[in-house]
Amino acid sequence: MSADKTAPAKLKARQPRGFVDRGPADVAATERMLSVIREQFALYGFDPVETPFVEYTDALGKFLPDQDRPNEGVFSFQDDDEQWLSLRYDLTAPLARYVAENFDALPKPYRGYQVGYVFRNEKPGPGRFRQFMQFDADIVGSGTVAGDAEICMLAADTMEALGIKRGDYVVKVNNRKVLDGVMDAAGIDPAVRLTVLRAIDKADKFPLEEVRKLLGDGRKDESGDFTKGAGLSPAQTDRIIRYLELGQKLAELGKANAEDSEGSAKLSAEALTDLRGLVEDAENGRAGIGELEQIRELITVAGYLGRIIIDPSVVRGLEYYTGSVYEVELTFPVTNDDGQIVRFGSVAGGGRYDGLVGRFRPEPVPAVGFSIGVSRLYSALKAVKSPIVDSRNGLPLVVVTAMDNKSPEFMPGYQAMVAGLRQAKDAEGKPLLRADLYLGSSGFNAQMKYADRRGAICAVIQGSSEREAGTVVIKDLILGAELAAASRDVKDSAEHKAKQAEAQFAVPVAELVEGVKRVLARHS
Amino acid sequence: MSADKTAPAKLKARQPRGFVDRGPADVAATERMLSVIREQFALYGFDPVETPFVEYTDALGKFLPDQDRPNEGVFSFQDDDEQWLSLRYDLTAPLARYVAENFDALPKPYRGYQVGYVFRNEKPGPGRFRQFMQFDADIVGSGTVAGDAEICMLAADTMEALGIKRGDYVVKVNNRKVLDGVMDAAGIDPAVRLTVLRAIDKADKFPLEEVRKLLGDGRKDESGDFTKGAGLSPAQTDRIIRYLELGQKLAELGKANAEDSEGSAKLSAEALTDLRGLVEDAENGRAGIGELEQIRELITVAGYLGRIIIDPSVVRGLEYYTGSVYEVELTFPVTNDDGQIVRFGSVAGGGRYDGLVGRFRPEPVPAVGFSIGVSRLYSALKAVKSPIVDSRNGLPLVVVTAMDNKSPEFMPGYQAMVAGLRQAKDAEGKPLLRADLYLGSSGFNAQMKYADRRGAICAVIQGSSEREAGTVVIKDLILGAELAAASRDVKDSAEHKAKQAEAQFAVPVAELVEGVKRVLARHS
Repeated sequence: MSADKTAPAKLKARQPRGFVDRGPADVAATERMLSVIREQFALYGFDPVETPFVEYTDALGKFLPDQDRPNEGVFSFQDDDEQWLSLRYDLTAPLARYVAENFDALPKPYRGYQVGYVFRNEKPGPGRFRQFMQFDADIVGSGTVAGDAEICMLAADTMEALGIKRGDYVVKVNNRKVLDGVMDAAGIDPAVRLTVLRAIDKADKFPLEEVRKLLGDGRKDESGDFTKGAGLSPAQTDRIIRYLELGQKLAELGKANAEDSEGSAKLSAEALTDLRGLVEDAENGRAGIGELEQIRELITVAGYLGRIIIDPSVVRGLEYYTGSVYEVELTFPVTNDDGQIVRFGSVAGGGRYDGLVGRFRPEPVPAVGFSIGVSRLYSALKAVKSPIVDSRNGLPLVVVTAMDNKSPEFMPGYQAMVAGLRQAKDAEGKPLLRADLYLGSSGFNAQMKYADRRGAICAVIQGSSEREAGTVVIKDLILGAELAAASRDVKDSAEHKAKQAEAQFAVPVAELVEGVKRVLARHS
Repeated sequence: MSADKTAPAKLKARQPRGFVDRGPADVAATERMLSVIREQFALYGFDPVETPFVEYTDALGKFLPDQDRPNEGVFSFQDDDEQWLSLRYDLTAPLARYVAENFDALPKPYRGYQVGYVFRNEKPGPGRFRQFMQFDADIVGSGTVAGDAEICMLAADTMEALGIKRGDYVVKVNNRKVLDGVMDAAGIDPAVRLTVLRAIDKADKFPLEEVRKLLGDGRKDESGDFTKGAGLSPAQTDRIIRYLELGQKLAELGKANAEDSEGSAKLSAEALTDLRGLVEDAENGRAGIGELEQIRELITVAGYLGRIIIDPSVVRGLEYYTGSVYEVELTFPVTNDDGQIVRFGSVAGGGRYDGLVGRFRPEPVPAVGFSIGVSRLYSALKAVKSPIVDSRNGLPLVVVTAMDNKSPEFMPGYQAMVAGLRQAKDAEGKPLLRADLYLGSSGFNAQMKYADRRGAICAVIQGSSEREAGTVVIKDLILGAELAAASRDVKDSAEHKAKQAEAQFAVPVAELVEGVKRVLARHS
C-alpha cells in the first residue's frame, strides 16, 4: 500500500501466554454441548442472563479462589474517570451485582443461568488458561436447602443429558457449617481457620501425614520450601485428621457404590452419624448436619440418591461459601500426563453464598449456585466419546473446483453451480449440504488436495470438454479413497471397475444437485 | 459471617458506562438469531473459529475505525513481562493474526467465521456501547473478486434467512480503487487523501454543500467549532462532489429499484459508465471499475442482481480496505428518536483488506471479509417482527407452588412433583415443558404472583386437604386471567362456570403430568 522501498520489519503473529485459539471442531462441539446444558437449565426454570465482561473492581470483591493475594489474579485497568475496572474472574460476582441492581424488577426467588468467558491474571500452565469458559446456574433469594437439592439434581441431569452414564459421575454434597462445627468443637482460633481450611483442601493432593504437618508446625516440600502451619495443638489436629479420614473413607465407598442407591443411602446415613460425633454440641455443626439430612431426604424422594451423595471430604476453595458445598466428580478412569490411570475428577462445583448479594442490599439475600468448567467438561465428553462432541456432526461439504480459474470469464459458471448447491433442500425443506467454491489461484491438483483437507464428501469439476458438452463431473472422494487403497488384484476386478464408474461420473449441469444427492445417499 | 458489630457501608451495585446486562428475552432471541447466521455461513463452507479476547497490542495494529487517535479507543494493560495487551476492538485483526500464525496448517483459501464481543474504549452514547457483538466471515488467501461476490451473496442470503424480505434490504458494493482513481485523476496530494476520505464519508450525514467546505478550506459547525478542510482546489473539489452526486443519485434509484432486477442491472451499467468519466485514465480507477464489472457479472449469473447493487456512495471508514467495499442496508422505514421516519440503515459491511494478514507474513496474502453488527441487526429483526426474535419461542413454564413452605417435611413432596414434570416428554421424546419449584418463604398469594411474573402457563398447588386426598390442583393461569377479565353478566352464565371448572381442577398426584398436558394442549 505504501510507496516506500524499505519494507518494514514483519510483525510476529503470536498470542499472549495463557490465551488460545479454538478451531472448527472445538467450536462446533462446544456449541452443541452448551445448547444441551442450556436446555437442561431451562427445564429447571432457569432464565438466561448475560452480564458484561468488564465490571467495577470494587463490585467484584475479593473472592478469587485459590489466591493468597486476590487482586493480583485479576486483569484491571483504570477508566478515564480514574475508577478501576476489571475483567470478571468468575460469573458469580457479576451475577450478584446484576441481581442486586435489578432487585425489584426480578421475580424472586430469581433463577438465572449464564455462560461466558472469565479471566485470571495468573501464571498459565498445562490445562491452566488465563481465559476460560464457565456455565453457571444460581438461585437468589431462597434460603431453603430445597434450592441446594435442585442445583444438585440439575447437575446430575445435565451430566446424563451430555452423555455421561449413571455411575460415571457423582454429585458430592457437604456443608461448610459442619466444617465450622468441627473447628468449633476443637476450639480452633478463628484467626487460623483460613490456614486450616487451606490445609484441609490439600487432602486430595497430599497424604494425610503431610496435611497433619500443615495443621501443626509447618511443612517443608521437596524443593526445601517451608510452608508455615496453622499451629494447632495435637488434639485439635487429631480431630481434623479424623474428619478427613471419615471423608476419604466415605468418598471411596461412595464412588464404589455410585450406582447402588441402597448402598449410598446407608453410607449417607453413616456419614451423618459419624459427623455428629465430631461436631459434638457445636451449634453450627449441628445445623449443617441438619441441612445435609434434609438434602438427603429431598434427593431420596425425587429419586436421585446414589447419583448425589453426602461426602464430608468436599471443601471447595472459595471463601464466600456459607452452607452447602458440592462438587460434580467424574469417576471413570483416564490416563494422566504421567501415564498413570486416575479418576477424571471434578468438572463442576458450587454452594451456598448467602453473603454475596447482601453486600449491595440493605436486607440479607440468601443465594446458591454452581458453576461448570466448560473446557474440562468438554475434555471429559471427548474421553467418554459422547456423540455430542463427535466431529462428524454437521452437514456434508461439497467443493466446486475452478479448473479454469486463470480465466475470469468462467468464474460465473462455477459460482452459479455453488449457488445452486446451497439451495439444495431435503424433503422437509432443510439444507442438505454445505458448498464451497475454490477461490485460490492454484492448479487442479492443489484444488483436489484442498477438497480433501476440508473433508469434502465430493468435488464438482468442469473443464473445457465438460463445458462444451454442458456437463459436470462429480467425484466421490470417500469412495475414491477406498478404491485407491485397494490391492492390485482387486483393482483388476470387474466389480472394482464398476465402482470406479460410480466414484466419478458426469451429469448435465442442470442435474448437478441430483448427482450430488446420489453421492450423499451413498454415505449417509 | 463476621462478628463485627459495626456493619460495613453497603456497596452500590452499578455498571461502568457503556456496558449493559441482557435479560432472558434478549439472550434467547440473540441465541436463535446467531444460530440462523451460523447455519448460513456454514452453507457457504465457512468454518467456525474462536480467538481470545486479549491480544498483544502490536498484533492488533492501528486500524480502529472512525478514530483520529486510534490507540485511545482501545482498552489496554501491561502484562507482568511489561508487554502491552489489549482487548480486541474488532474480529478482523485477531483473525488476521490467527491465519498468519497457523498459515501452513490451514487449507487455503481459508474460509472462517467468528462471533463474539469486541471492545471500544470510547465515550458511550445512545445505542453506542463499549462492548458489542460482531459476527464476521472472512476468506483469506484469495485475490479473486469471486470472493467478494461470495461474501455479498452470503450477506443477502443471511438477511432473508433471518426474516428480512427481499426488497427490504440491499447489499451495496463499491471499490476503493475507484475512489483512489478519482483522486488520482483529480491530482489530489496523497498527504491529504485521508482527510478527503473522511469528508466523503460524511456525505450520508451532511448536505453536499457542507462536504464541499470539508474538502476545501474547512467547516464551522453549529456550535462554532472549526474543522480544517483538505484544502483541495475548486476543480478537485468539483470532481469529488460530482462523484458523490453520482453515488447519491444511484443509491436513491437503486433503493427504489431494489426489487426490480432489470432496473438494477440498468442502473449498475449506468453507474459504471459514469464512473469511467470520473477516473479518466487513472490505472487504479480503471482496475476498480473492472472489478465492479466482474462482480456484476458474477451476481447476475448466480441470480442476485437487484439484491446486490453497485453503489459508488459506499466508502466505509476503515483504513485497511484495499479493493471492494460493501454495506448491507435495510431499506424499510422506521421512526427515529426524533420522531422522523427514516430508513433503518446499515447493519453489516466489509471489504477487501489485502494488507492485513501480510503484515505478519513474508508473502502477500489477499483477504476479504464482512462483519455484522449483531445488536443493530437484532433491533432490525424486532422492527420487522421476525419470528426468530419472537419472545413466545421456547417451552411453556409450569410453577409448582409450595403452600406449606414453612414446614420442611412437605418440601420433598413438592420436589418430587417438579422432578416428575421435568421428565414429561412429547411423542418424539423431546421435553414438553419447563418446571419451576417456588423456593422462597412468602405465602400463597405471593407465590401466585411469582407464577404470573414468570409467565407460567399453569400453577400446581397442594395444600393440606389435597395432600390428605392424594390430589393436586392445576390452575390454568391463561384461562384464569381471561375469565377474571369477563363482565359481570358473562360471569353469571353457565358457560362461564363450566370454563371455571376447566381453569382450576384437581387430579390424583400420579396424574399430575397428564393434567398439565391438558392445559398445554388447550393453549398450544
